[in-house]
Formats: sequence, structure tokens, C-alpha cells
Amino acid sequence: MKVLVLGGDGYCGWPTSLHLSDAGHEVVIVDNCVRRQIDHELATQSLTPITDMKQRVKAWQEVSGQTIAVEFGDLLDWEFISDVVRRHQPDAIVHFAEQRAAPYSMIDRRHAVYTQHNNVVGNLNVLFAIQEFVPECHLVKLGTMGEYGQPNIDIEEGYIEIEHNGRKDVLPYPKQPGSWYHLSKVHDSHNIAFACRIWGMRATDLNQGVVYGTVTPQTERDPRLINRFDYEEVFGTVLNRFCIQAAIGHPLTVYGKGGQIRGFLDIRDTVRCIELAVENPAEFGEFRVFNQFTEEFSVNQLAEMVVEAAGKLGFEARIDNIPNPRVEKEEHYYNAKRTKLLDLGLQPHYLGDSLLDSLLNIALEYRDRIDPDVVMPSVDWREGRAKQRVHKAPAQPSASL
Amino acid sequence: MKVLVLGGDGYCGWPTSLHLSDAGHEVVIVDNCVRRQIDHELATQSLTPITDMKQRVKAWQEVSGQTIAVEFGDLLDWEFISDVVRRHQPDAIVHFAEQRAAPYSMIDRRHAVYTQHNNVVGNLNVLFAIQEFVPECHLVKLGTMGEYGQPNIDIEEGYIEIEHNGRKDVLPYPKQPGSWYHLSKVHDSHNIAFACRIWGMRATDLNQGVVYGTVTPQTERDPRLINRFDYEEVFGTVLNRFCIQAAIGHPLTVYGKGGQIRGFLDIRDTVRCIELAVENPAEFGEFRVFNQFTEEFSVNQLAEMVVEAAGKLGFEARIDNIPNPRVEKEEHYYNAKRTKLLDLGLQPHYLGDSLLDSLLNIALEYRDRIDPDVVMPSVDWREGRAKQRVHKAPAQPSASL
Repeated sequence: MKVLVLGGDGYCGWPTSLHLSDAGHEVVIVDNCVRRQIDHELATQSLTPITDMKQRVKAWQEVSGQTIAVEFGDLLDWEFISDVVRRHQPDAIVHFAEQRAAPYSMIDRRHAVYTQHNNVVGNLNVLFAIQEFVPECHLVKLGTMGEYGQPNIDIEEGYIEIEHNGRKDVLPYPKQPGSWYHLSKVHDSHNIAFACRIWGMRATDLNQGVVYGTVTPQTERDPRLINRFDYEEVFGTVLNRFCIQAAIGHPLTVYGKGGQIRGFLDIRDTVRCIELAVENPAEFGEFRVFNQFTEEFSVNQLAEMVVEAAGKLGFEARIDNIPNPRVEKEEHYYNAKRTKLLDLGLQPHYLGDSLLDSLLNIALEYRDRIDPDVVMPSVDWREGRAKQRVHKAPAQPSASL
Repeated sequence: MKVLVLGGDGYCGWPTSLHLSDAGHEVVIVDNCVRRQIDHELATQSLTPITDMKQRVKAWQEVSGQTIAVEFGDLLDWEFISDVVRRHQPDAIVHFAEQRAAPYSMIDRRHAVYTQHNNVVGNLNVLFAIQEFVPECHLVKLGTMGEYGQPNIDIEEGYIEIEHNGRKDVLPYPKQPGSWYHLSKVHDSHNIAFACRIWGMRATDLNQGVVYGTVTPQTERDPRLINRFDYEEVFGTVLNRFCIQAAIGHPLTVYGKGGQIRGFLDIRDTVRCIELAVENPAEFGEFRVFNQFTEEFSVNQLAEMVVEAAGKLGFEARIDNIPNPRVEKEEHYYNAKRTKLLDLGLQPHYLGDSLLDSLLNIALEYRDRIDPDVVMPSVDWREGRAKQRVHKAPAQPSASL
């Protein structure tokens, strides 16, 4: 199949592009590299030394013989995205191309507006491009488990049957997102559901959990194919962050009580889930929702697992419960369904010692690139800064520790 | 109380501004008059000859002795709205200032994007301005009953208790909005609920039904205070449209089977509901939702009532079921709760002969201003035009009929 991967230069998008190419699909990456630009804004960088897009696809062609085309541009630019969709006539569009960090959206008003405008309008443009030029194309859209929040009932996959005053209906699962970013994904989900209803479009919304890891079988094949690894407080996901903290002797920063439970998955499962969705498309008119994660952990559990794994590698890590910069329940019920991707054939990589070892070893390998100034939270949910954030002077990545 | 009325020049905003001023509140209108600009775009005009903002507030001062200040500007302009909120330090902000027509949002991609960008980002700016400059201010936000769609269970006021797999929670009522416009209101609701949760903001979301009528006790006091009356297919609400059609001898255009049921209210109740919300604010941290309508009717019922009222006035009206340009259920269950505003003291004006007579008489009075070319639907929900709409040559309002 011909697949456009929007955001194919990113943390999930790049390994997905390689995985789909390896699986025999014709892949076109669409990206504006804004994630690399944000590294400059935040004065940080990927732990792993990633190469630029040109080198990436060149290296992939050398090691695999497969070509991945690149279209550079912005989904907000209708002229650009409509032209790309019209020219390539994709069978599927995988849409990762959104601002994806909750803390980034919470920096101040400007970042909140940027996130919602960028994500919502970019996605609207994708919907209209599909409708206009490739109405049979299947949209595979990345959402997040964070759209659901932490309700006191089981979380279903997108829809819930409600019995109320003696009548029944199956309705969209109520959403309680926890950041301007998570809200943007809820807005997207509603917009896509509507497009499916009025136009007969077909779409799969993948409510993804927190991704950890960085390596896939494809990214390992050449150093130029290495995937990005974010460890700082804005874009770094919790397990990746803990491994870095352990590697540099920084206490693992558990926010609040640490009883927050979330769904997690290995990045090797992310790429496989996308493949499963692409190869088993939704029906015309169907807005299909999958919960894309493989295990549930509390933040405390993860911290303890990292401490133990670090101990086996011979260095000591400790846990520090710091004030929670987020507004969220720190002890709560959590039980989310995750059967639909398993039914399609997903065979999960569960979190275990070997993955933790691998993460810690990556952290140790690149410890010279770690800037310890960017691991502590600086964005506070309660502040609601409307004014422009005063950035600290860009920190130089420490040359040695 | 000092009240900012955002969108105070519009169909609901203007009579609300007068009503609040009459009730002794200090009113400041904030508007960019974009609704008047859209009349030029669509080559149409208010049935009633409305005066400009300057004349309006001057006339109000002459007849009432009350001053209404006007701030001209756009909510998308952060410098503007933050400055207005900071200078005026309002106790309440009533927010009508959004693109409010479902058909307008469905014209093409550009209008869909305009609607969601304008409404969502404008509202975000209002939230951040409140948080930054007047954190105790109560936000009264206009939503729509159309956010709920047509579920097969009773519609509650914003929240629903769900029992699921032996556990219970009270969650946001699931939304199934039916246009890009209605979706923008759903996005706003989620954003405001979040602001209340993280910042302790207080807000009331008024999910308003379809408004009919144009006259309030204040707008009657001087011809310069007259309210706008939209009768065309894009901004005209169904009952207002039917009355115009009857007045010019055009068949009443029922979309599809006409079994679509909606909540309706008289504009004299709109202004009173706003007053009740303003004078009985939500608690800090509370996101309060009221369903703001007084009666339910099917489109067929309304058409029949207009035919009957027209007959009593001595002219014959007939009904024409035309293909439905919208994608919606034409026969469905509908039972929506509406007790919270009644509990606060709302005394509804129910739809009766006198109101229909008044509407028909307004239609007859201004029939020379009616353009019969703009009453038939031209915007189709199924088309999903991504390309720019080709406008028909602007029609001249007919000088006589």
C-alpha cells in the first residue's frame, strides 16, 4: 500500500516509517521538522544523535534497498498538503504530525494556542484533503489515552453503552483530558468522527498510551537511522526520563504521590499497531477507536523497577517525590480496555529487565549529551501564565558530569 | 455588576446588552462587527434595518439614561482582549462572540477552519485573560443544544451519572455535534471545563436551543434600537425563516421528513437566562452547564403552526418537504432536561399565536427588504467542498415583490 506518514521525522513517526517500508509498503514522509526547531526553543536536544531527514532516508535506502520519499511542509498550509495528497493518492494516511507534549502546551497562552491551532486546523486540512482527493483513503490518526482522563469506571475503546432512565444508546466515551494538548486530541477525535458520519470517510483513532524505548529492529541497522530519545521534562516520557535520571545519579522525580496509573507500551509495539491498523482498515463511514497500550503501571511502580534495574547494573538510584506540577488525581481507579489491537494480532513486548537494561545502557552511552538542568519540571499547570514565558538562558549541554 | 458582553452587536448579544443595562448592570460591549461583514460576503442583510453601533448606544442613552461602552476589536487579538479585560475588571463576561451558524461553517474548508479557529482560539484568549487579570470573574459562555446531537437516551444538563460494570461516576455528557460550528462549541466546552479544573475558574455554559423572535421590551423603545432578524438559509433560524417564507408566498421549506426535534426559546427568554446566570454565578472551580430552551418542537410542528397563524392573518402558506441538505436523523427520540434555569426563576414565554402574529407582521412590514433568492438551502453537508466556494453574483435585495 502507499502510505503517507505525516510527522514521519518524529519519535514515533520515524520508526513507523521504517517499519512500514520494511513491511513492503510505499512510504512517503510528510514533515516540517518543527520538532527539531522546538529543541532549539527549549535549548535541549535528543539524547541520541539523530541525523537529518536527507541522511536518514539515504541510509535506509542503502541498508534496505527501499526508497522513502520526503515532502517537507506544514499541514496548516492547505496549498501544500492538498497538493501532496492529490499527487501521491495514498491508500492510507498515518497522522502523527501534531504537537505532542502536554507540558509544552501548558507553558503559557501562546503555547496553548499554538498547540490547539496547529493540531486542530492541521487535522481539519487532512480531513478535507482526503475528502477532496482520495475519499477512499483510510486515516490512521494518533490520539492519546490521556483523552479519557481518570474516570471512576472502566475505560472502553472509544464508545460506551449507556443505560439511562430505561433507554439505551452507544455513545462516544466521555472525555476528561488533562492539558491543552490532550484537549486538542479530543477536539480532533470529535472532528474526525463527524467527517466519517457526513462523508462516509473511514478512520482509525489510536488512543496511544505512554511510549517508552527508542530502538526498533530497523533503527538498529545503521547509526544514521537512530531514533530520537527525549529525556527532558517537556517532551521526555516518564520511563525514558527515569532512566536518564538514574544514569546521571539524579533522583527519579516522581510527581506527587506517584499513584497515577497510565497505560504504557514499547515503541516496537507502536510501530506494529500502526501496521495492523493500516493493513486492516476501518469500514467506510466508520470511526474506529483502538486503545493502543499493552500494560498499566503506576508512576511509583515504574520508578521502583528502574531503581532495581539500575542496582543490577551496579549503580544506585533513588526516588524523590516532588510537588506535582500537574493537576491530576494521584490515587485513582484505572482499568482501560485494550483488546482490539490484540484481536488484530498484536504480540506485545512487555516491559522487562532487558528493555530497562537497554534504556539504561543508552542513557550511559550518551550521558555526555545529557543536560541535567532540563530534567526537573518547570511548567506548572496551576500558573496559567498568559504572558510570554521568560526563558532561562539556553543551557549548554554538559560536556562531562 | 460590571459585565462585558462579547459579541454585543449580534442577534442575541445586542438585546442582552440592553436587558442587562436596563436591569442596572454596567455594560461594555466588545465586538468586531464581523457579523455585519458576513452580510456583505453572503450578499444578504438583516430583514430589520439595524443601525450601527454608535447610533445604537447613543439611542439607548437617550431613551434610558444609561451608558453602554463599546470596545471594537477581535478576540483573536490577544493584545486587544487582554487590554480590555485588564482595564475594565469585569465581574462577569458574557461570551456570544463566535461564528454561530452551522451552514456557514459547512460552506467549504475555509469556512470550517475559520469557524473553529475563530471560536476556539478566541475563547482560549478569553480564558487566559480572565485567569491573568480577573480570576474571580464569572464566565457566561454561549454553547448550543446542538452539542448533544440526537442520542437515544434523555439529554441531561452537561453531566450524566453512568453505572458501568458495577461502578459509577458522573461524567461529561457525551457529545455528537452535527456541524463544524457545533463541533467548535464542543471544543470550547471541553476547554472551559479544563480551565475551571486547573485554575479554579468559574464558568456557566449555556447550551442554548434555537432562538426565535427579534423584539424585546428594550429594543422596542426606539427604532434605532431594533434588533437584527436573519431570514436567509445560512444565519436564519428555522421559525424566523418560515415566517418570512409565509410572508412572501414562498412554500415553507421543511428539510427532509421534518421529524427533527429541537429545543426552542423566545429571544425574550434568552436575555433573561443570561441575566439569571450572571446574577447567580457559578462557584469557583465549577463548570456549570444549563440547557437554555423552553419548549421542544419538531420542524413539522413549527411549519404547521406558521401555516395556521398565516391563515388567521388572511394569507395562505403551504409546506414543501425538500431534500435535506444536512446529515441528521429525521425521526428520533428527543427528551432534554431544562430545569436549572427554571429553578433560578426563569418564567418562559411559550410560543403562541401572538408571537407568531408578531413575527409574521414584522415579515410583512419589511417584505420589501426580503431577497427571495436566499431562502433556499445552498450549503450541502455531504459535499465537503475543500475548494473555495464559487459565490453566485451578489443578489440585489428585491425592491418589490
